[in-house]
Amino acid sequence: MELTTVREIFRDREKYLNKEIQVGGWVRSNRDSKAFGFLVLHDGTFFETLQIVYHDTMANFQELTKINVGAAVIVKGTLVPTPEAKQPFEIQAEEISIEGASTPDYPLQKKRHSLEYMRTITHLRPRTNTFQAVFRVRSLIAYAIHKFFQERDFVYVHTPLITGSDCEGAGEMFQVTTLDLNNPPKNPDGSIDYSKDFFGKETNLTVSGQLNGETFAQAFRNIYTFGPTFRAENSNTTRHAAEFWMIEPEIAFADLKDDMILAESMLKYVINYVLEHAPEEMNFFNSFVDKGLIERLKHVANSDFGHVTYTEAIEILEKHNDKFEYKVSWGVDLQTEHERYLTEEVFKKPVFVTDYPKEIKAFYMKLNDDEKTVAAMDCLVPGIGEIIGGSQREDSYEKLLARMNELGLKEEDYGFYLDLRKYGSTRHAGFGLGFERCVMYLTGMGNIRDVLPFPRTVGTCEL
Amino acid sequence: MELTTVREIFRDREKYLNKEIQVGGWVRSNRDSKAFGFLVLHDGTFFETLQIVYHDTMANFQELTKINVGAAVIVKGTLVPTPEAKQPFEIQAEEISIEGASTPDYPLQKKRHSLEYMRTITHLRPRTNTFQAVFRVRSLIAYAIHKFFQERDFVYVHTPLITGSDCEGAGEMFQVTTLDLNNPPKNPDGSIDYSKDFFGKETNLTVSGQLNGETFAQAFRNIYTFGPTFRAENSNTTRHAAEFWMIEPEIAFADLKDDMILAESMLKYVINYVLEHAPEEMNFFNSFVDKGLIERLKHVANSDFGHVTYTEAIEILEKHNDKFEYKVSWGVDLQTEHERYLTEEVFKKPVFVTDYPKEIKAFYMKLNDDEKTVAAMDCLVPGIGEIIGGSQREDSYEKLLARMNELGLKEEDYGFYLDLRKYGSTRHAGFGLGFERCVMYLTGMGNIRDVLPFPRTVGTCEL
Repeated sequence: MELTTVREIFRDREKYLNKEIQVGGWVRSNRDSKAFGFLVLHDGTFFETLQIVYHDTMANFQELTKINVGAAVIVKGTLVPTPEAKQPFEIQAEEISIEGASTPDYPLQKKRHSLEYMRTITHLRPRTNTFQAVFRVRSLIAYAIHKFFQERDFVYVHTPLITGSDCEGAGEMFQVTTLDLNNPPKNPDGSIDYSKDFFGKETNLTVSGQLNGETFAQAFRNIYTFGPTFRAENSNTTRHAAEFWMIEPEIAFADLKDDMILAESMLKYVINYVLEHAPEEMNFFNSFVDKGLIERLKHVANSDFGHVTYTEAIEILEKHNDKFEYKVSWGVDLQTEHERYLTEEVFKKPVFVTDYPKEIKAFYMKLNDDEKTVAAMDCLVPGIGEIIGGSQREDSYEKLLARMNELGLKEEDYGFYLDLRKYGSTRHAGFGLGFERCVMYLTGMGNIRDVLPFPRTVGTCEL
Repeated sequence: MELTTVREIFRDREKYLNKEIQVGGWVRSNRDSKAFGFLVLHDGTFFETLQIVYHDTMANFQELTKINVGAAVIVKGTLVPTPEAKQPFEIQAEEISIEGASTPDYPLQKKRHSLEYMRTITHLRPRTNTFQAVFRVRSLIAYAIHKFFQERDFVYVHTPLITGSDCEGAGEMFQVTTLDLNNPPKNPDGSIDYSKDFFGKETNLTVSGQLNGETFAQAFRNIYTFGPTFRAENSNTTRHAAEFWMIEPEIAFADLKDDMILAESMLKYVINYVLEHAPEEMNFFNSFVDKGLIERLKHVANSDFGHVTYTEAIEILEKHNDKFEYKVSWGVDLQTEHERYLTEEVFKKPVFVTDYPKEIKAFYMKLNDDEKTVAAMDCLVPGIGEIIGGSQREDSYEKLLARMNELGLKEEDYGFYLDLRKYGSTRHAGFGLGFERCVMYLTGMGNIRDVLPFPRTVGTCEL
C-alpha cells in the first residue's frame, strides 16, 4: 500500500476522508492514557502535522505508548473528520509499525529550542517547525527565481566557481590548490611554484559571475546566473557568510531603466509566488518570527518602487544627520542605517537609489554624462536595506580602458572583457541579488546562519 | 520603440507580419550589391536568424555596406513574408543604426571553426550556432530538472561547497585556504597550523552533497540538490572536468525500486521537455552533431527501462569477453565498454544494473540479505554508459557502523550521519546525475569541455 502524504491529505481532503490510508512520518509527540494514545506525526511533505489515535485494542499498544519523539512510524488507518477539535481531521489507526526508533535523549524534544542551539545540530534542525518553514520557503524562492527568468526565455548560465583571475576585485578570496602545503614546490627565488598546481597557476573561488555572465549576454541577450559565491572576509555579522548563493541576470540592448524594471518585477514575482505556494509557512513566520511580515510583503508586491538619485538621497539624509551614527555627505557610501531610513521613513516602500559617485562603485559601471557619477542602482527594501545592486555596464571600449588605467587594472587581465566592447558592443546592464538576503527578507529571519542549510562563516565549517 | 525579439517573430509571426517593428542583434553576415544589401541578424533570443534587406535609398547605405561580422545593430523596418525564399520572412529596413561596431579580424568569421579553436575563445563561442544550441539546451535541461522535482514537492537543498570533512571519499579534493602559502603559520612540529586558517581547520571543496542531503531527506522526505561539485583528478579525458554540476535527489520511506522509478521518470521528463521546448536546437544537433539523436531520445522516452542484476549482467558479458579490452568476471567493476555493450547491444535501451558487489561500491549502500551485494543501481544509456548512479542507503545503525569499521572509517567523523540511523531512521535512497553527462547525452556533444560554459580541467582555468 502506497504512503499517502500529509500534503495530499491537506490539499485534497475530500479524496481521503473516511478512507483507509497509510502514512509514514516522524513522531513529534506521543501521549497516552490507559486505553488510547495520540501521536503527532510530521511527514516532511507539509508544514502541518497529523494526529494519530491508537487504542489498546492494538496488539502492540504497550510498545506504542513507549515510542520516543523523533521515531519514524508507518500508520495504517482511517482518516476521520474532527469537527470539534482544532485540527480538521485525524487518523484512527488500525496498525502502527515502527520504521526506525528514537531515544529518550533525542536532541529535539517538544520544548522550544534557541536558534543558537539549533546551529549546533544542523543535521537535525530541519525537523523543527522553524527550519521546515525556512528551508521549504528557501526552495520555493529558488524555484520562483528560475521560473521568472525561464518564462522570459533567459538562459541560465553556470559561471565557474574556480577562477584563475583574481581581478574581480569585489572582496577577499579563498585560494584553491592541490599542492602539498607542508612541502610545496618552489621557484628558484623561494616563492611557490604554481606551475605545479592543478591548473598550472594560482586559482581562487569566485566572488561574482558577472564578468563571465556578460560574455553570455552578448550572445544570448538575456541571461542569468544562480550559483554559489564566496567571500573570505573576516566579518562575523548576522548578514555575512563565506559561502552564499547569488543571482546575477545580465541583459543586452538594455539600460539602467530596463534593469530596474527587471529587478522590481522579479522581486514582486517571487513574493507572490511564495505567498501563494507556502501559505502555512508564511503564516508561521508572520505569527512567530516577524509580525506584520505578510502585510509588508503584500504592500511591496503592490507598490510602485520609489526612485531617487544618490545626490537627491544625500540631500534628504543630510537633513537627518543627527539620527545617524555615520554622518552623510556627497561622496560617502551609504550605510545600512541610511538605506533603511530612506526606504522605511522617507519612501515607506522599496526604493531604487541611482547614479552613485564613480569612486564608490566598481570600474565596469557606465560613466554618466556628468563624468562624476555612474549608472548604478541599489534597490533598498524596508527591514533590510540594500537587497539588490546593479548597474548599466560601460560599453565604450575607450572609456572602460581609461577607467581601468585610472584604477591600475591591467589590460592583459581583462582581454576577454574588453573584447566584448570591441566586437558588437551593446548597451547592457545587470544586477546581483544575494539569495540569502532575499530569503531573510521573505521569511523575516534575522541571521544568515539560519537560512543557510549548513552555514560557512569565519571559524565555522561543520558537516 | 521597444525591440521585438526574433523569438517573438518566429513564435507569433501573424502578429508581426506586414507591421513596422524594431529589432536589435548581431550581424552574422553582410553582403551587398550596388543598390541593396542583406544582413543576417541573430539576436540571441532564438536559434534562427532574421534576414534584413537594406537599400541605397537609405542615407547611411555606404556605411551599412561596410558593417563587419559581429557588429551590433538596431533595425527599424517592416516584416514581410518571403514565400519564394528559404526563410519565411525578412525585414525591409527603413533605418539601421550601428549600436556597436566590429572589426574585420573578428574571430568568428562565417567559415566553420573547429571545436578546439572555439575552446580558446570561450567568451565568444556562445555566439555560434553550435554553442547557442548547447547552452540554450543546457539551460532548459537545468530548468526541466528543477520543474520535475518541484512539481513533486521535493525541497531543493543547497548543500555546502566548502567542507571540513574529507571523509566523503569519492575522489581527490581541492583544498580551500586563506593562509599565505609563501609564509604559512606552523605548528611546533613544523606542520601547517590550520587553526589559523579561515575556518580554523583544513577545508576542501566537496565531491558530493549526498551525506548532507540525507539529513534533509530525513526531515522533508523528498529533497534534491543541484549544485557544483569538484574532483581534483588528473584525468584528461573527454568526460572529466574538475568542476561540474550534479543533481542528487534523496527520498525517505523509499527503497531501491522507488529510486529507479524516480530516475527513469526524471530522465524521460527532461527528454520530453527539451524536445518540446528546443525543437530548432535539437534538429540542429540531429543534423550536424549526432545523426539519429532525436529518434534515439524518443525511443528512450517511450521505453520501459531494462533491469538486470550485476550478477546476471556479468553472466551475459562473460560470453562476450572476446570483444572487450577488459575481461569481466564476478567482482570486477564495469567499464564503459561493458556498460555500453549491455545497453546498446543486449537491451537496446536504457537499463538499470542493480545489486553490485559491496567491495566496489560506497560504504553507505544498503547491504543485501546475501551479505555480498549492496542495493545499488547504475542507469546505463546508449551512447554514454553510466549516466546515473544510486543506491538504497544503509539505514541500520549497527550495519553501517560495522561497514565503516571494516573500511577503517572513523566513527567521530560521521557522528551526524550515524545520528540519522539513531533518531527515526527510515528506508531511504537516492542517486546522482552528472549534469554535464546529461547535457552531452541530450545534445550528442562528445566532449565535456563543449557543454561547460567555462570548462575547468587539468591545466586549464581560463576566464
